[in-house]
Formats: sequence, C-alpha cells, structure tokens
Amino acid sequence: MKFKLFKWANFEWQGLEKEKYKKNEGSWRGVSRRVFVGKAGEPTSFDFRYFELDEEGYTSLEKHDHAHVVACVRGKGKVIVGDEVVELDYLDVLYIAPLVPHQFVNTGKGPFGFFCVVDRERDRPKTLDREEIENLLRNPEIKAIIKP
Amino acid sequence: MKFKLFKWANFEWQGLEKEKYKKNEGSWRGVSRRVFVGKAGEPTSFDFRYFELDEEGYTSLEKHDHAHVVACVRGKGKVIVGDEVVELDYLDVLYIAPLVPHQFVNTGKGPFGFFCVVDRERDRPKTLDREEIENLLRNPEIKAIIKP
Repeated sequence: MKFKLFKWANFEWQGLEKEKYKKNEGSWRGVSRRVFVGKAGEPTSFDFRYFELDEEGYTSLEKHDHAHVVACVRGKGKVIVGDEVVELDYLDVLYIAPLVPHQFVNTGKGPFGFFCVVDRERDRPKTLDREEIENLLRNPEIKAIIKP
Repeated sequence: MKFKLFKWANFEWQGLEKEKYKKNEGSWRGVSRRVFVGKAGEPTSFDFRYFELDEEGYTSLEKHDHAHVVACVRGKGKVIVGDEVVELDYLDVLYIAPLVPHQFVNTGKGPFGFFCVVDRERDRPKTLDREEIENLLRNPEIKAIIKP
C-alpha cells in the first residue's frame, strides 16, 4: 500500500469510521473520534486522529505523560490547560506538555472539531485527584466551564 | 512551559516564523514551512509543521524511509504519489508510506497549504534516479505536472 487518501466531505472522510471517544461513559459527553493513522500498523511513531465535540460536549478532564498537538478545523471551543483557559478557534494550533491537566469544552454553537496527534506509544490518561480539582476550581474562568 | 498556543490569522500564526522549505534551491519552487512542534525539544516522537506552496509552486520530487501524514487546509493541489496522481482538497488527509516517491504541486489558483506530520527521527530525502523518473514519465497524468 503506497498511500491512503481520506477524502473529506462535510466532516466525514471516505472510508473512515466514526468511533466513540472512549469505551467508558461518565467523564465525557458527545465526543467522537476518527483514526486516520495509528490502527493499521503504519510505520509511524505517532497517531493522527480527529476528535469532534457536539454542542455542549466535553472530553475527560485528565492528564498523562504524553504530549498533545491539536489543530482546530471546525467551530471553536475552550480548553482548560494547566491552570488556564484558552480559546481554540479555526486553525489555531495547541501544544499541551506532558502531565498538564486538560479538558476540551464546546462552549459554542455547532460542533467543535480538531485534528490531534500523539505518540503511538503512550500512557493511559489519569483522572485528577480531589486536591487538583479544587485547585482548578479556584480560577473562576475554569470554574465556569469545567466538568470535573 | 505547560502549553504553546499558536493563534491563526489568515495563514499566519502568532509567534511562528515562516521559513524556507529547504536550504538548497533548485528542486523546488515557492514553498514555505512553519514548524509548530519539533525544534524546541518538545518530548514528542513527531514534528508538526505547515507547508505552503505559492501558485505554481512545487516541492522536491523525492522519497525517504519515513512516512508522511498531511492534511490540506488551504486551497488545493495535486500530489504525485508512487505512480499515481491524487488531488488534495480542503481537509483531505493523505498518508504516504515509506519509500514512495512523491511531489506536491500547486496546480490551482492561490496558495496550497497543508499540515504535515513526520517522525522526529527520520532519514534525509533522496532524489530519484533517471530510471525511476523515466518510469514516472510514462504516466501521462504524471508527465503533465511533474517537475523532475
């Protein structure tokens, strides 16, 4: 196989399955996931995925040893990253360093979607402990949108 | 440093330098490069970049051991990949396997831009030999756009 081309049409890609963000429910809402590269034994050290949050959707509040690089391509949203909140808008690129707590929140109208690249070999995400969450809640900007 | 946010405005990103595609001239035309992640010692196994081809621009015709994943975010263009030509349009994602000859060509109006992810540890691109180029030229679709 010399190449794989995923043709886009309104945030569906030909031949690419829309999956659930995570098997376990509870810590997230209205998030889907598509894996372009990473599940077919491609000889890359990274996985290339697309995540989409429905209106009012959010990802798990978590941290892990591996870094993230995301690039927003649909709508916009907010990201709790460390003890700050940043807005991620069209074609903004965000690097999240290892062990930095983060949560993506769709605070706008319509879907919020982004490409997301991670190392193929990576640790499992960890939830935050009570103290870490309480620290985050001291920031009113975070408190307004966090889904702990 | 907990995160780095690169805010987009009309295909410029705040704090991100626009660089030349390659130091050596000759094999390419009108290509710029931006490196979001990869030059600051980020603990990722991959680099995350953006390449842009001006009208009539093209990248080097080359092959290498490392794979590419690209996602088109500006304009559209054609890609010679192996012995085929594919069109890369808005938000299309293309995986190029190791050692597959490839060349990106802007055949349209306006700039053609794409994110491009590669392994951090990677080999240097190699040019094609005369026989490989002659084989490619047998395909009229390739012959029409190739810049050998």
